[in-house]
Amino acid sequence: MAQIVRIAIDAMGGDFGPSVTIPGCALALDRQPEMRFLLVGDEKAIRAELDKFPRLAERSELRHSDVAIRMDDKPSQALRYGRRVSSMWMAIEAVKKGEADAAVSAGNTGALMAMAKICLRTMARVERPALAGLWPTLRGHSVVLDVGASIGANASHLVDLAIMGSAMARIVLNIECPTVGLLNVGKEEIKGVEEVKAAAAILRESNLPGFEYAGFVEGDGIGMGAADVVVTEGFTGNIVLKTAEGTAKQIAAYLKAAMSGSLLAKLGYLLARGAFEDLKSKMDTRSINGGVFLGLEGVVIKSHGGTDSVGFARAVEIGYEMAKSDLLNRIRDTVALAHQFESGSADPTNPQEAAQ
Amino acid sequence: MAQIVRIAIDAMGGDFGPSVTIPGCALALDRQPEMRFLLVGDEKAIRAELDKFPRLAERSELRHSDVAIRMDDKPSQALRYGRRVSSMWMAIEAVKKGEADAAVSAGNTGALMAMAKICLRTMARVERPALAGLWPTLRGHSVVLDVGASIGANASHLVDLAIMGSAMARIVLNIECPTVGLLNVGKEEIKGVEEVKAAAAILRESNLPGFEYAGFVEGDGIGMGAADVVVTEGFTGNIVLKTAEGTAKQIAAYLKAAMSGSLLAKLGYLLARGAFEDLKSKMDTRSINGGVFLGLEGVVIKSHGGTDSVGFARAVEIGYEMAKSDLLNRIRDTVALAHQFESGSADPTNPQEAAQ
Repeated sequence: MAQIVRIAIDAMGGDFGPSVTIPGCALALDRQPEMRFLLVGDEKAIRAELDKFPRLAERSELRHSDVAIRMDDKPSQALRYGRRVSSMWMAIEAVKKGEADAAVSAGNTGALMAMAKICLRTMARVERPALAGLWPTLRGHSVVLDVGASIGANASHLVDLAIMGSAMARIVLNIECPTVGLLNVGKEEIKGVEEVKAAAAILRESNLPGFEYAGFVEGDGIGMGAADVVVTEGFTGNIVLKTAEGTAKQIAAYLKAAMSGSLLAKLGYLLARGAFEDLKSKMDTRSINGGVFLGLEGVVIKSHGGTDSVGFARAVEIGYEMAKSDLLNRIRDTVALAHQFESGSADPTNPQEAAQ
Repeated sequence: MAQIVRIAIDAMGGDFGPSVTIPGCALALDRQPEMRFLLVGDEKAIRAELDKFPRLAERSELRHSDVAIRMDDKPSQALRYGRRVSSMWMAIEAVKKGEADAAVSAGNTGALMAMAKICLRTMARVERPALAGLWPTLRGHSVVLDVGASIGANASHLVDLAIMGSAMARIVLNIECPTVGLLNVGKEEIKGVEEVKAAAAILRESNLPGFEYAGFVEGDGIGMGAADVVVTEGFTGNIVLKTAEGTAKQIAAYLKAAMSGSLLAKLGYLLARGAFEDLKSKMDTRSINGGVFLGLEGVVIKSHGGTDSVGFARAVEIGYEMAKSDLLNRIRDTVALAHQFESGSADPTNPQEAAQ
């Protein structure tokens, strides 16, 4: 018998609420029938959508909430009116209570991060959570983090990102010992900000288990697949991710214009339509929608706020995959191993350090 | 009679030296016949290439240098062995001495920046120079800066970037009052790092002349042309630029694979070849090669180190355009106007401030 995975959905999150989230869940269920849903939000609004998807309705429980978190509120504001009572909070809380294996929201990133931290707590030995994304590369996919959970990071945060990112890569890329690179402005050791250089020194010298440090990766190295895991702080990570998505959309617009420019181009397009469809699906940013919060005591997935049901379905499936592959324990193990290793390799002549 | 523009070339710079720089100059000369060249570097190596381009040879002067700056040296190292005697320094020095209107190098960015600062000096009232790039957008082009001259920036540096970028945009985009945006992780005022928020407050409240402040721009807004000038500090700027270039290359690889996948695709490609050529030229990063140093007392252009002669020619042409459009005086005027405006708009009841 297949393992049932229960997903809690913040049905009100995102730019479009239930009109995207509910069809998204239905799509995800079509592909992964062993899912069950807890749909949190305005019951009437959800029911109106759910009526169109009887199969999903059968496998879903509804939980009413009057409060939806607004997309532009500060985390502190969102917490003031949304703690305990909002659809976002209640979806996360279902994970904490063991009623769901993962929570998915397309809502306000800052609020989601703040609520998840307060409700689920940060994992032992992890200073702060991160948001990780999947990045399509010429070699397959890479895990890129932090794509916007925290702004700024010191060397020790960056090392945490390397450790957590490698745990996620082991699951999604199915690589036992992934390579980890630090995003930087050049490959040479002298380049970049101090925090990145300091993190590089730690990763190089500590030789942590579970991944292989691959040095600095430049912006154009991400898409080439220069490392399985690419680590950067959240400000640069968020901008870089959106820039790549924007560039893909821009080129898609060029392509469309070029292919409808002349009769010959149109004819060529018709003949090569299958190839164009392949290309389109490769360039479809919806297929990689769904950032994974790492370092929390529970699986929480952040979907793009502006995505459609296809994109939201993908975020739901990522939640399913993470829960099913036991992401939390994998991260716990990797973090524990790294810390064990760090203290094991500490100078034994220094009892204070060795005792840590 | 056309105006002669004299370009000093660091012929030894870049990954390939004279075998790229000399054919690059020849190409640029074909398109802009009113250029004259001062070619600096190993005379024998330059001569061997120059012999293939008699027209360029006729319009060029050679200046021998034994010393080429290595691509991976720290700026301090490069200065130690290359000050006064390297081809890079001598090309910049020709601008200082008034022998050339612009210098172009594909060499080590850090060394070029350091030498240009020492040899040419920073403009009055500009705290530090920046490197600006042209970014193709769905609306045309935008100026993006800083793409790697300095790592980190405080609010006042970011405001300087806005002022200098708008001066460059006025020339290259031919817009009298360009819009200026600050690169950030969201459009809302509460988002981002402190320096960016502080710069936003200054730009919003001071209402500086010569450009219009357009708020925050997210990563995917750059390629959409959300602002004529996009301002960010050099670490993020450099990574973002390379990421976009990498994404374009990645999609080009997908496209190539798709179009050679089946017989129909190949046939379609043949029919639509004209359209594909258009697309290819739109995606060709060589066409935007050439970063412009802003805020120096002289025009210095940085070419990608790994570019070919087509890309190098473009960097030479950018030097030509900047010198011809009197970039320096335009920046000087814009900076002066901004400072005049800042002191003019200061509170007159506060004599200390008003007297500044």
